[in-house]
Amino acid sequence: MAKPIGIFDSGLGGLTVTRAVREALPSEDLVYLGDTARVPYGTRSARTVVRYALGCAERLMSFDIKLLVVACNTVSGVALEALEQKLSIPVIGVISPGASAGVQATRSGRIGILATAGTVASGAYERAIHRENEAIQVFARPAPLFVPLAEEGWVTGEVPSLATERYLQPLVDADVDTIVLGCTHYPLLSETIHDVARDLLGHDVVIVDSAKATASALTSLLETQPAEPSGTGSLRVLVTDLPGQFAAVASRFLGAPLEGFDIKAIDL
Amino acid sequence: MAKPIGIFDSGLGGLTVTRAVREALPSEDLVYLGDTARVPYGTRSARTVVRYALGCAERLMSFDIKLLVVACNTVSGVALEALEQKLSIPVIGVISPGASAGVQATRSGRIGILATAGTVASGAYERAIHRENEAIQVFARPAPLFVPLAEEGWVTGEVPSLATERYLQPLVDADVDTIVLGCTHYPLLSETIHDVARDLLGHDVVIVDSAKATASALTSLLETQPAEPSGTGSLRVLVTDLPGQFAAVASRFLGAPLEGFDIKAIDL
Repeated sequence: MAKPIGIFDSGLGGLTVTRAVREALPSEDLVYLGDTARVPYGTRSARTVVRYALGCAERLMSFDIKLLVVACNTVSGVALEALEQKLSIPVIGVISPGASAGVQATRSGRIGILATAGTVASGAYERAIHRENEAIQVFARPAPLFVPLAEEGWVTGEVPSLATERYLQPLVDADVDTIVLGCTHYPLLSETIHDVARDLLGHDVVIVDSAKATASALTSLLETQPAEPSGTGSLRVLVTDLPGQFAAVASRFLGAPLEGFDIKAIDL
Repeated sequence: MAKPIGIFDSGLGGLTVTRAVREALPSEDLVYLGDTARVPYGTRSARTVVRYALGCAERLMSFDIKLLVVACNTVSGVALEALEQKLSIPVIGVISPGASAGVQATRSGRIGILATAGTVASGAYERAIHRENEAIQVFARPAPLFVPLAEEGWVTGEVPSLATERYLQPLVDADVDTIVLGCTHYPLLSETIHDVARDLLGHDVVIVDSAKATASALTSLLETQPAEPSGTGSLRVLVTDLPGQFAAVASRFLGAPLEGFDIKAIDL
């Protein structure tokens, strides 16, 4: 039987990564775990995030996963090494793939990052970009309204456009030519971000969707692995709590209605 | 020596209540505890919220407080009884004062509530209003963008006005004459909410600021207590974590610069 790929996030944002993985690898079986009872991780200490991440990974290991995707910027920033040490399977985060895609896309060597306040403060994207090319200038800006805008489904129109204008201003002042979306919620707003950025900058700009970048990195990684039997494209969703807006938010992030998927509330 | 009043919130939102209390009772000494390391409580189980609340209250009791203000809608909704049973001092929440002020203000018997998704789902304001008057119709609407708007300080202008228009639409359709702000962050937006509501409704509307309503209830409660020596109007702020934007958000919510106050990060 084909072994599934495990995908883990602190909440539902990682379903945008799941969507990109399903598009890139339609015959893989996936098990998603969203720790919705303890979301957000961004405000917790690194030690707590590591502990939570190891607990979630352990639960996913019980599904005999062949590979773990950490679809969460906070966990990717602080717990990737601990997960790699603990697990006997490959682990892939969202920060390196997004940073690499940004490095490959930029021509001017000026990259903007939009992320949560916690991710911006951690400097994780700067470090990942500078590991590849120290000469690149990185301009990071938190965009806290994007999370509720994505969850509400307010992704086009006046409110997101005006909020985007304000958030982009420092990146426009820095004349970036590439913007990395460093939060799993933000891909829902990528069209608005692209259009507003192009209008403000007066030239085109590459928006790096780190969900898609992670799916590409995953595809490359699988090609290096020994061939495995192909799956059926199934998706199981495990959540530690069923928040009120679960179905609406999950369908929006996954880009597909939830019917037909196996959704289960679990205790951790 | 004068005993201080304890004020407790899951984060910094309760500083709007602290501000209202300082304005209403300028000579009282206050100790504020914001559990910033574990914010938000709204996504946690009732059992967890009760446990966190008892821990925070215990810490505040070590300051020999004479009274506890629960400046948090989530805790007020699920843990007030547990706190009252455990503590030997009076405990006052934010829901009853806000609900009472709404009941007193309405002429049409149609009250709107704006609150977080968790508070709306809990039905706490409906229950509190119906305990006073069963005939009142209550229309509750979550307004999740208001929290980051308040934290960012985007409280007037296009983005908050347009977001407010969308959130108010169901309350306008219901033709309410009173709107209770059922989240400690929302008073920062009260002017915008008032103006947008009046424009949409075509008549004036009472905006109940539950921070001010709680300060009034506290003033009444203190008048029923035996006279105590008067304090010096001091404020100590305890937080379980110092988030990145702490100073900016705290000053905004408190309506005063932070210099001169005693701010301490504590472990719980």
